[in-house]
Amino acid sequence: LQSRLPHVGTTVFSTMSALAAQHGAVNLGQGFPDFACDRRLIDAVDAAMRADHNQYPLMAGVPALRQAVAAKIAALYGHGYDADREITITAGATQGILTALLAVVHPGDEVIVLEPCYDSYAPNIELAGGRVVRVPLNPQTYRPDFDRIAAALSPDTRAIVINTPHNPSATVWTEAEMRQLEALLAGSEVLVVSDEVYEHMVFDGASHQSAARFPGLAERSFIVSSFGKTYHVTGWKVGYVAAPAALMAEFRKVHQYNVFTVNTPMQHGLASYMADPAPYLDLPAFYQAKRDLFRAGLTGTRLRLLASEGSYFQCVDYSEISDMADADFCAWLTREVGVAAIPMSAFSVEAPVQRVIRFCFAKTEATLQRALDKLASL
Amino acid sequence: LQSRLPHVGTTVFSTMSALAAQHGAVNLGQGFPDFACDRRLIDAVDAAMRADHNQYPLMAGVPALRQAVAAKIAALYGHGYDADREITITAGATQGILTALLAVVHPGDEVIVLEPCYDSYAPNIELAGGRVVRVPLNPQTYRPDFDRIAAALSPDTRAIVINTPHNPSATVWTEAEMRQLEALLAGSEVLVVSDEVYEHMVFDGASHQSAARFPGLAERSFIVSSFGKTYHVTGWKVGYVAAPAALMAEFRKVHQYNVFTVNTPMQHGLASYMADPAPYLDLPAFYQAKRDLFRAGLTGTRLRLLASEGSYFQCVDYSEISDMADADFCAWLTREVGVAAIPMSAFSVEAPVQRVIRFCFAKTEATLQRALDKLASL
Ligand SMILES: CSCCC(=O)C(=O)O
Ligand SMILES: CSCCC(=O)C(=O)O
Repeated sequence: LQSRLPHVGTTVFSTMSALAAQHGAVNLGQGFPDFACDRRLIDAVDAAMRADHNQYPLMAGVPALRQAVAAKIAALYGHGYDADREITITAGATQGILTALLAVVHPGDEVIVLEPCYDSYAPNIELAGGRVVRVPLNPQTYRPDFDRIAAALSPDTRAIVINTPHNPSATVWTEAEMRQLEALLAGSEVLVVSDEVYEHMVFDGASHQSAARFPGLAERSFIVSSFGKTYHVTGWKVGYVAAPAALMAEFRKVHQYNVFTVNTPMQHGLASYMADPAPYLDLPAFYQAKRDLFRAGLTGTRLRLLASEGSYFQCVDYSEISDMADADFCAWLTREVGVAAIPMSAFSVEAPVQRVIRFCFAKTEATLQRALDKLASL
Repeated sequence: LQSRLPHVGTTVFSTMSALAAQHGAVNLGQGFPDFACDRRLIDAVDAAMRADHNQYPLMAGVPALRQAVAAKIAALYGHGYDADREITITAGATQGILTALLAVVHPGDEVIVLEPCYDSYAPNIELAGGRVVRVPLNPQTYRPDFDRIAAALSPDTRAIVINTPHNPSATVWTEAEMRQLEALLAGSEVLVVSDEVYEHMVFDGASHQSAARFPGLAERSFIVSSFGKTYHVTGWKVGYVAAPAALMAEFRKVHQYNVFTVNTPMQHGLASYMADPAPYLDLPAFYQAKRDLFRAGLTGTRLRLLASEGSYFQCVDYSEISDMADADFCAWLTREVGVAAIPMSAFSVEAPVQRVIRFCFAKTEATLQRALDKLASL
């Protein structure tokens, strides 16, 4: 049997979680909260199940949830999506990204990714028959380098995948950077897949620069987000995609033959829970406090803190401690120090040594403190 | 924008449900129960949410659920799958089928489907870069024609998709038919995608002929099933795929970059609910009673009843009533008679006129009676 994805193994997140469990390490690797979600959200899902919302919803998703999403995007980013034709509920953000790429990439098309990047993008492009064109982010700052992006554009470029707040680096694109991308793509037919799953985790008073804010991007973008990350229920696997009607029509052709539709009671529960914007409006302060606690705790160590402008990740440079490769250092840290992290190198296909690792701080104070106590020796 | 699926519109199930709603018709079209699921199943999911099972489960699914599936397959079909390496929980059966095809079909490979068949198979094959090879079932009996299947096999054949109990025709493959397929594929490298979502709905004392029962098929098959259909929760979108370890390894490479994993609390709830086999063991009698009620009610009409050996569908030939094409007759029936059905022609790419429509009898007695009262005039 010849593999369709010969270079692909098990995702680094699964591998590191398994290693953490094996060594009883504090798991700051795979990105997920270790605290409970709001009981009101559970109550809302439970009520939906008991109200017999257990059969197929509409293929594109429960209308109330699509409307809630459209209202949120309009309020926060000033762009009006038609809930009927331009928003689809997905079985998580990853399914949304694969589906968008399957819908628009034709065999031989090129799709640009900015490395380091989330590990599903490249296999998604390959499954769609496309060619992955890897453009590095600035290797010191992890910011986009528009000269390199411009140089990578070709007549075969079908799409570019962007991601802000950025996993793994925790950078947040500025308005100026979004405008540069908008200008670069103006007049082209290049589409954008904009992974915005950490949209509600932007710190220090900055604001999330959704592609929806920029008309020249919104018109060509699939905007992808995640209820799991926003509401501390990563295991529910519910997300959404917003796109102009012509793009969404193609998206739905694939979506209906991938998952067809998404868990009904969860959708109803999320729709009623979204009526209150407080949970996502409060999120920046909630996560900024965790970030600050974690950063403060690392200050006496030889781990050099990189900026964490958004997301629930904090990257550190460990080159003062070791010259091991990123993955080896992570394995060592899990085994010997008792804290699991994700190697930065796992987010690039060639796994270049960067001596940077990513911690997830979406954890209780107690968990963060346990990790900090162990890391204090470094 | 050039479509990846130019021939595809909105699935017939969505279209007919919308038409049924528009005309206030009794909806016997799209296949889903209109009665409640077991409250114990809801209680189990609720308990899982309140026990904080709300973050990512393992990529392949909650171990207890995979073990319950393996135990069920071993008990019913006598084949032992390794729950760790050979079973993966999916976001419904459709996602399982697309994922299996994406995992093994290379551009240019041929995949055989037996028409009429479920409408996702062909677009799934096309999305994987494969060529759809359509082999008709016997046009009178909807049974497999092995001479035609044999003639369709070529060195480029990568896989065949089979489906028993069969949607839409409600035929159930016999042991002899499964053995014929096994013999036909012996020594070849052709894989099988076996859609068995109606496995627990086989009538008149017959038994489901899972590909798992036949060693020569099991070794080359992805077996796909659905908790939604078995437990009256089609909207939960949870299913599973079982396959030999080497096939499953390739499946998981794609699965992890499609949905990554499936709703955690639903998986936990299903795992505990499956401890009692009664709900699925009682299903044949439960649905056979509905089938018999529905068939009895149609006996005085000019609709000719086809066999319904399994699934929750009943097909009828309406040629004594009208010479309209299948889709037109369905539209007329919805509008004028007030009962929605699905045209048989929708399950073949060329939509040949068959003068056959499919009713779903997964409905309360009251619903079935309301439909029968309307259909009595025919
Ligand atoms: C799909 S598990 C990984 C979760 C995540 O997004 C991350 O850790 O980056
Ligand atoms: C995906 S909606 C269709 C449900 C179904 O399987 C059918 O009606 O055949």
